[in-house]
Amino acid sequence: MRISDLSGASGVAVPTVKYYLREGLLPAGEATAVNQARYNEQHLRRLRLIRALTEIGGLSLRSVKAVLDAIDDDRLPLHELLGVAQYALEAPVDEPSPEIDGAVEALLRDLGWRVDPDAPARRTLGRAMATLQELGRDVSPATLARYADAVDALAASEVASVPKGKSRAESVEHVVVGTVLYEAVLDALRRLAQEHHSAERFRNEQP
Amino acid sequence: MRISDLSGASGVAVPTVKYYLREGLLPAGEATAVNQARYNEQHLRRLRLIRALTEIGGLSLRSVKAVLDAIDDDRLPLHELLGVAQYALEAPVDEPSPEIDGAVEALLRDLGWRVDPDAPARRTLGRAMATLQELGRDVSPATLARYADAVDALAASEVASVPKGKSRAESVEHVVVGTVLYEAVLDALRRLAQEHHSAERFRNEQP
Repeated sequence: MRISDLSGASGVAVPTVKYYLREGLLPAGEATAVNQARYNEQHLRRLRLIRALTEIGGLSLRSVKAVLDAIDDDRLPLHELLGVAQYALEAPVDEPSPEIDGAVEALLRDLGWRVDPDAPARRTLGRAMATLQELGRDVSPATLARYADAVDALAASEVASVPKGKSRAESVEHVVVGTVLYEAVLDALRRLAQEHHSAERFRNEQP
Repeated sequence: MRISDLSGASGVAVPTVKYYLREGLLPAGEATAVNQARYNEQHLRRLRLIRALTEIGGLSLRSVKAVLDAIDDDRLPLHELLGVAQYALEAPVDEPSPEIDGAVEALLRDLGWRVDPDAPARRTLGRAMATLQELGRDVSPATLARYADAVDALAASEVASVPKGKSRAESVEHVVVGTVLYEAVLDALRRLAQEHHSAERFRNEQP
């Protein structure tokens, strides 16, 4: 297909497609004339992935590039590759205090989760816990464990859904898309559930 | 306390505090001299809230202002007030197709959740579902219901944790902080759980 068809099918404007081509986010098409190229399903798939990562995941183009580079790099073992891609999804966060670090470590130990000491989600969790604590909110191990239990089985089935016998690139793409998009699903459903339960509880309260 | 003490206690730089004062995000202090004012615990609490919303919640200052205005507006019934504040937290999203809209509606009906037709989380959910579908991923009612079940009890206990006998402003603040910060906790824990389960499953796969 031509660049205009690619734009139409992906919903990404032509100038943006050209920008992605220049920045190396999208591989060049097959040249068919001096100023024309042909694109295929792979290009379309990659464009939809970029759109998903930026629009739904809220990733910067720099983070998208890091994820795509991880997908295209076939030297790393699969587990590390999935880790690189997943870590690129996390926004950088200040290092939490040793106390909070210890609380995160204790929680992970209680849960029996083995997680790299440099996993960025540890910091994200620690930062949120520190702020909740500053604001006088509940960050007791029992409360945190309830949140952990809510996602444990989901995460296990998400990992189990990574298709077997696919290319490593496809596996990474599966994990990255799943991490970002099902997070959006999970967060939206939580807000809808909050609205439902809030209406049940507060509907009849006086102004 | 003086502005420098307020800055030190909140971790927000003095020029930023002054900016918030100018923009009306933070109420003025009590004037003690021509160019000096005294601030109290309320100011500190509000500053920590602004910091939580921007740094952890990723909210724009415009969205923060909408949330703070909802907190300070004491004319709305509590349920609507909580809705306004929670809706301000949601990033604007394009309207999904009628098919996706119908799928969201059917899901909510199956769950028995009563949610306003204009709830922005409906669109966020629909947009994520549409993208997952485009990318060939599972958005079957059974899968979505598993995500919904994972957050249903959490959301109910989050709503139940809104303290009774507090001012309406404090109730809104409780909901807003809880929505944003426990979302960060939930998402970070999901990623940590994914890493754990991914390591268990893929550690020994060949490169």
